[in-house]
Amino acid sequence: MDDIKSIKNSKVKELRKLYKKKYRKEKGQFILEGLRLIRGAYQAGADINNIFLSSQFYQSNKTESFLINNEDKLIFVTEQLIERVADTKNPQSVIAVVNQIKFTQDEVVAKDYILILDQIQDPGNMGTIIRTAVAAGFQSIVISKGSVDIFNLKVLRASMGAVFCLPMIKDVKIDELTKLLKAKEQTIYAADLETDSYYNDLKYKKPLSLIIGNEAHGIRKKILDRADQRTKIQLRGNIESLNAGVAAGILMFKILEDSF
Amino acid sequence: MDDIKSIKNSKVKELRKLYKKKYRKEKGQFILEGLRLIRGAYQAGADINNIFLSSQFYQSNKTESFLINNEDKLIFVTEQLIERVADTKNPQSVIAVVNQIKFTQDEVVAKDYILILDQIQDPGNMGTIIRTAVAAGFQSIVISKGSVDIFNLKVLRASMGAVFCLPMIKDVKIDELTKLLKAKEQTIYAADLETDSYYNDLKYKKPLSLIIGNEAHGIRKKILDRADQRTKIQLRGNIESLNAGVAAGILMFKILEDSF
Repeated sequence: MDDIKSIKNSKVKELRKLYKKKYRKEKGQFILEGLRLIRGAYQAGADINNIFLSSQFYQSNKTESFLINNEDKLIFVTEQLIERVADTKNPQSVIAVVNQIKFTQDEVVAKDYILILDQIQDPGNMGTIIRTAVAAGFQSIVISKGSVDIFNLKVLRASMGAVFCLPMIKDVKIDELTKLLKAKEQTIYAADLETDSYYNDLKYKKPLSLIIGNEAHGIRKKILDRADQRTKIQLRGNIESLNAGVAAGILMFKILEDSF
Repeated sequence: MDDIKSIKNSKVKELRKLYKKKYRKEKGQFILEGLRLIRGAYQAGADINNIFLSSQFYQSNKTESFLINNEDKLIFVTEQLIERVADTKNPQSVIAVVNQIKFTQDEVVAKDYILILDQIQDPGNMGTIIRTAVAAGFQSIVISKGSVDIFNLKVLRASMGAVFCLPMIKDVKIDELTKLLKAKEQTIYAADLETDSYYNDLKYKKPLSLIIGNEAHGIRKKILDRADQRTKIQLRGNIESLNAGVAAGILMFKILEDSF
């Protein structure tokens, strides 16, 4: 059979829809572009639905285990078509459609170290924070309504595969979730520039949650009100704030090291 | 006099040259776009050479002190011309040419907390690391040959004005500089994934320098060999590395808090 070359092919049309958040949510799927990202996701246990690739890519990467173990899921298309569909400048002739894994609220809340993200907007920040959370030792992540989609390709790239490493739930109403956390005797910490409590003066004890807020506006008040302890990083040199990813990293590593 | 509208105007030609690294170095100048960036730089003491702006911008921002105190340095151009010249999508009708401040090696080396950056390539990382260094309390920055230009507009934006807050020298041969640092009895720490010394097991004492290396390749061996102590951050959850800005932030805050 010839490689698909038409952008109007029904399978290609389905693929293209997944570049929109709305369809990713509707179908429970998302997209990965490029050898490195797909390989990492596969190794981390991602559930691959199908793979669009060129014959040339297949010839050069036959020994790649995500290809060997998904032989029935390969859809051959031309190089030109991949380039036309892909978001990345250099998509390396391969795009995978991956099924989102659904975690329950109970799975996420049963952990000792939970990261809660309230309306993070920048895809790079979101991906970096997820990657840093896994590296620090956080065990699950809760993402509020109104955040950037974690299945956005830019988030997936910045997270370097970390999104596949731990249970995550999204579109969560965090003020409601806090009741569940309190029932689990979680201490809820909140990063907040308005407090006088410096993060390195506190003693942390697990089980705990840490809330990080929006890059410009911080954590919404109704959520901040549910926190047990607000905390901030002392800034010198007339700097008003840190990059959200850097601030989250400093807090997460300190908390884990203190309480592990 | 009418606002300049020709891209061939000699002053506009000079301005456009400064979008290239080579000319920035040659002229000892660089560019800032937009009200917020220019205001921040002015407040931090930046030496403004001249300001290209539209009449409309002037009318709406007459009370801005960087305009009041630089009346003789204003060059009026059309909105269209600014948009054509500017790198930013929404340059807000103002571009400032700023004179680079030259610091001597002695000024930089005489500090208790020195950050040394070896071949950082990504402008966003460079800007974030500079901003974080100032916030942590580092007092000077050394930038190696082969790094991204700190007067690149993307670096300036990510640094949020922090480049104007402390002495910096660039295009430095770091292996040679280390002799000077040793003469000042500096302890030189190096972030290095290959060591077994975790950063939170060490005791830090000033005066000290911290070296951070390239995002992909780390610190070059000839420089690493000059360090007194290598150190790394313990990573959990199968993550191989952190974002360079996050890693630098975690190390810098820990070091300052331990030794201040």
